[in-house]
Amino acid sequence: MEQYMFILNIALILISTKIFGLIFKRFHMPQVVGALLAGLILGPAVLGVLHEDDFISQVSSLGVIVLMFSAGLETDIKEFKKTGKASAIIALLGVIVPLIGGYLLTALIIPPTQGDSSQLTFLKQMFIGVILTATSVSITVETLKEMGKLNTRAGNAILGAAIIDDILGIVALTIISSFADPNVDMLVVFLKILGFFAFSGGAGFVCYKLFSMYMDRYKKDYRRFVILAFTFCLLMAWMSEVVFGVADITGAYIAGLILSNTSRREYLGMRFDTLSYMLLSPIFFASIGLKVELPAMSATIIIFAVLLAIIAVITKMIGCGLGAKLCGFTNKESLQVGAGMISRGEVALIVADKGLSMGLMDKDLFAPIVIVVVVTTIVAPVILKFVFADKNNKNKGKQPKPEPVYETPEQMGESII
Amino acid sequence: MEQYMFILNIALILISTKIFGLIFKRFHMPQVVGALLAGLILGPAVLGVLHEDDFISQVSSLGVIVLMFSAGLETDIKEFKKTGKASAIIALLGVIVPLIGGYLLTALIIPPTQGDSSQLTFLKQMFIGVILTATSVSITVETLKEMGKLNTRAGNAILGAAIIDDILGIVALTIISSFADPNVDMLVVFLKILGFFAFSGGAGFVCYKLFSMYMDRYKKDYRRFVILAFTFCLLMAWMSEVVFGVADITGAYIAGLILSNTSRREYLGMRFDTLSYMLLSPIFFASIGLKVELPAMSATIIIFAVLLAIIAVITKMIGCGLGAKLCGFTNKESLQVGAGMISRGEVALIVADKGLSMGLMDKDLFAPIVIVVVVTTIVAPVILKFVFADKNNKNKGKQPKPEPVYETPEQMGESII
Repeated sequence: MEQYMFILNIALILISTKIFGLIFKRFHMPQVVGALLAGLILGPAVLGVLHEDDFISQVSSLGVIVLMFSAGLETDIKEFKKTGKASAIIALLGVIVPLIGGYLLTALIIPPTQGDSSQLTFLKQMFIGVILTATSVSITVETLKEMGKLNTRAGNAILGAAIIDDILGIVALTIISSFADPNVDMLVVFLKILGFFAFSGGAGFVCYKLFSMYMDRYKKDYRRFVILAFTFCLLMAWMSEVVFGVADITGAYIAGLILSNTSRREYLGMRFDTLSYMLLSPIFFASIGLKVELPAMSATIIIFAVLLAIIAVITKMIGCGLGAKLCGFTNKESLQVGAGMISRGEVALIVADKGLSMGLMDKDLFAPIVIVVVVTTIVAPVILKFVFADKNNKNKGKQPKPEPVYETPEQMGESII
Repeated sequence: MEQYMFILNIALILISTKIFGLIFKRFHMPQVVGALLAGLILGPAVLGVLHEDDFISQVSSLGVIVLMFSAGLETDIKEFKKTGKASAIIALLGVIVPLIGGYLLTALIIPPTQGDSSQLTFLKQMFIGVILTATSVSITVETLKEMGKLNTRAGNAILGAAIIDDILGIVALTIISSFADPNVDMLVVFLKILGFFAFSGGAGFVCYKLFSMYMDRYKKDYRRFVILAFTFCLLMAWMSEVVFGVADITGAYIAGLILSNTSRREYLGMRFDTLSYMLLSPIFFASIGLKVELPAMSATIIIFAVLLAIIAVITKMIGCGLGAKLCGFTNKESLQVGAGMISRGEVALIVADKGLSMGLMDKDLFAPIVIVVVVTTIVAPVILKFVFADKNNKNKGKQPKPEPVYETPEQMGESII
């Protein structure tokens, strides 16, 4: 019996995320909010009929990798390069402002733990700031895809800033860890990051050339390209995480970016979309909700959690929005960029987890972090919906998403495996 | 590190099954044989770089469910009904002949275990026969799909016979178990089987009507039908296995059969094919090879294994072929049906496993069963390729598989989730 439970669990996740997604769509909200809520309701926070297990967690890792790979595939690489400098400034301010905000709030509200040295107290307060620097754009990507706005100037700036944010997050975590743990070698971490960029550039160039040659030479059975691309995506994700210490989704995104210029980009995008919506994405989005489990909290901690969530939303919007504005984006675009960086997702939880194990965070502050993740994740797509709405557009009143026209007759030639 | 290994494993499986598949295709053999060999070579039997873990085994369970669901979708239900009686006779003879063959070979070659009563010795000899009655048509389905021959008279007869074979296998296992274990209640098992058919009929009728109504009423976003169909497939698979004690793949096949008459059958088939070839099928086929692990064997056991594999192939071909011939199939079709039922796949391993735990099989006979599974699984698609070849056909010399023309422009309207 037990060994077949996962089949029932998948069925439950698929149907509930779809139903909730459709309900939210009916009210002109992103379907992904519905999917997140479905997980929250099924999970330990509300009904408790579903719990995250190894299978769900591995499938969702795969899901977010495929999601970011698809985002890379859809990116217009010329536009992406154009927004490069802006992305760096957006990411930098998007790290500094939440870092300060998180530090100040913690220093003001949370009394120092008895027995901590003043240096450790300071590090702990800073660590909450470090957690707030994290960004998880997977929700943003899904929301913008759904609205057909991923390939806009703001969309590209968000994706670029997310990569740099990931790097800056690693740097911040490394710096603060090196104070607490003498084994953390900053030099090694920096060399690895440099190595990652050198490797991505090299692998990118070689693989792009090889893929292009093969695709131009062979025009019959496209399935092999899908499998090759998927293998490339998985290898890049794995290398990033395990070899270079950079997030797997950053590697997956770069893999997609590398293939976005090949002739089979649309065919690939379509196939990965199918894989995503049929199985991987629903499980990934539901799993975020499933992670939420709230212990009993003291009044101080509850107040802290609420304020931290507000600070988390505001500081990212201000930091990233300011960065975009400084780089010549319009007010509306700056708002869009700020909104796109709000979601903390699983990244903040991973950082918090590391903090717990290094003694840089007290256990009772974990629940507030969970609340921040939930609030930012659910609020982000809602805000995105508003700031990306086409007010003065001819499409007013219509569904904002144009139907994707991916499939042309010449893309159909394929065998069954 | 450890937690990211599964990403590397998936990459390894995808690329190796594709490369081996293409090599076999080059030599006009089914790609699925290459995929099986890829697993065998990567696994403990040869290189030992990959082992079956929970993730791989769960994804492959899902893979075979989706495969059988797709086969159901592709089945022409009118043709299927026509071959109903024939399927029953094919399945019956395909159970009786291997049962006798397995029993006789064991009685002749394997000396009785010391201390066993003569009744237990007889049961053990019969049990090897029961194992040989198993049929796993997933490999056949994939091979015939690849060749474009799934929807032939022989293809339909094979699918029908496989369902009945599954039921007869349960009956045989129940009868022999009831001799060894007084807790096994034959009446309950029979009632469950009856319940399964009643339930399938009822659920089938209701769900077919509901799906048809919804599909006719709603013509914009087809993704919801894909998710609904997948949920239905998973629920049927789970119910079959857990509630009625029938194989999950039988339930999945029937779910596909129920939806095969709806207006969105082709759209559904195309989506499930994509999900299948991008992730689930490669992992499923590789996992069969990964299971193979051969311990040291005595000379008697090796001889027994070789003879058992030969008997397994011959008795299924004779039994099922004879059944088909009796029902008015041509000689060639009878051969095709016989070849389609050869593969024992995972079903034989599951039955053998139950035998071990009930004391109806000795441990040293497990390796021969593994060899039978490997041999029949690899031999089946090769034989199928020959017996389904179009000798007097206009297509002579051409690739036998026509390009599937699934995607018409009107099927393209869909949103992103």
